[in-house]
Amino acid sequence: MPKVETFNRDLVLDYATAVFHDKGYNATSMQDLVDATGLNRSSIYNSFISKLELYLECLKAYESNFNRAASNVLLKASNPFQAIEFIFDLYIEIISREQHYDKGCMIGNCKAEMANQEQSITAFLEGNQKRMLQLFEDLVHNAQSEQRINTRQTPKDYALYLFSSLQGFRMTGILITDKAKLKTIANTILQTLI
Amino acid sequence: MPKVETFNRDLVLDYATAVFHDKGYNATSMQDLVDATGLNRSSIYNSFISKLELYLECLKAYESNFNRAASNVLLKASNPFQAIEFIFDLYIEIISREQHYDKGCMIGNCKAEMANQEQSITAFLEGNQKRMLQLFEDLVHNAQSEQRINTRQTPKDYALYLFSSLQGFRMTGILITDKAKLKTIANTILQTLI
Repeated sequence: MPKVETFNRDLVLDYATAVFHDKGYNATSMQDLVDATGLNRSSIYNSFISKLELYLECLKAYESNFNRAASNVLLKASNPFQAIEFIFDLYIEIISREQHYDKGCMIGNCKAEMANQEQSITAFLEGNQKRMLQLFEDLVHNAQSEQRINTRQTPKDYALYLFSSLQGFRMTGILITDKAKLKTIANTILQTLI
Repeated sequence: MPKVETFNRDLVLDYATAVFHDKGYNATSMQDLVDATGLNRSSIYNSFISKLELYLECLKAYESNFNRAASNVLLKASNPFQAIEFIFDLYIEIISREQHYDKGCMIGNCKAEMANQEQSITAFLEGNQKRMLQLFEDLVHNAQSEQRINTRQTPKDYALYLFSSLQGFRMTGILITDKAKLKTIANTILQTLI
């Protein structure tokens, strides 16, 4: 008979995500997860199968959180170019919240640590990349229709450029959390689209 | 009496670097290092103190290798703007050597996995960042003097933009190794400087 979960799954995922984000996958021990979630080992295994499966669920939860934040940002933008700008601004806010250092993007960190080592992780990363590229491609396409972004390149090519730049931007934020410096980088990234 | 090393230190560092680059710091076990270097555990501890110290030496060796490759590239460039372009081309060559996936930059991967967790690692990463920023700042400064790069921004600001973009470029190369796509991204990154 399957065990009945007697805990709040979303909350447990939040706690586990915070640990994985902070330490990375390999440095996180089962004991760290026990301490963070308040569950014992067997509950974790019963509910999430393995550390890897739990990590994968945390990555998905992290992406959902980003999507929610991005949706709010998109709603506030008055045009698709501004929407792209607001996505960078969102990251500036996230990064500069930290006093000294930022942890970086959990998905980016996962890519650096784990890509091509575990098939399920690589599949998640490829899916995330595809979704991010589609988001940027749609925004660029619409902004080009409104003549807010030049047509020197296709929406697909600009999307790839923006995705690449955004990854670097988040990496930079690991050691540089100064808002003005980050804004200057973001402006330079966007300059070429205008 | 200190033990005499009876192995080729550079070669051992090469082997250890390959493992750390492939698996990352935390996923690399002492047994992996024993297998890769052909040394036994006590030789590794005697010569390199700890796994962390060995990793740090590998990071330094990796940076030296990059510097050597970058110097060759700079010598071939006929002007400082082309030198920046050649640095991106060098990465395209490195990334597209892989059939499917690239491992990414070992230093970038280290930043994503380890920054702000170990003081000695963070210090290395900050030093590396400083050296990369200086390299780009000098190149941009010289290219601006030759009117090959516009003066909309200072050499310092463009250097930070280039360093940020390069980190993203290497991250992108983990899942995308197609030469033409990478070249399009690099061209777009450099476009704004012209």
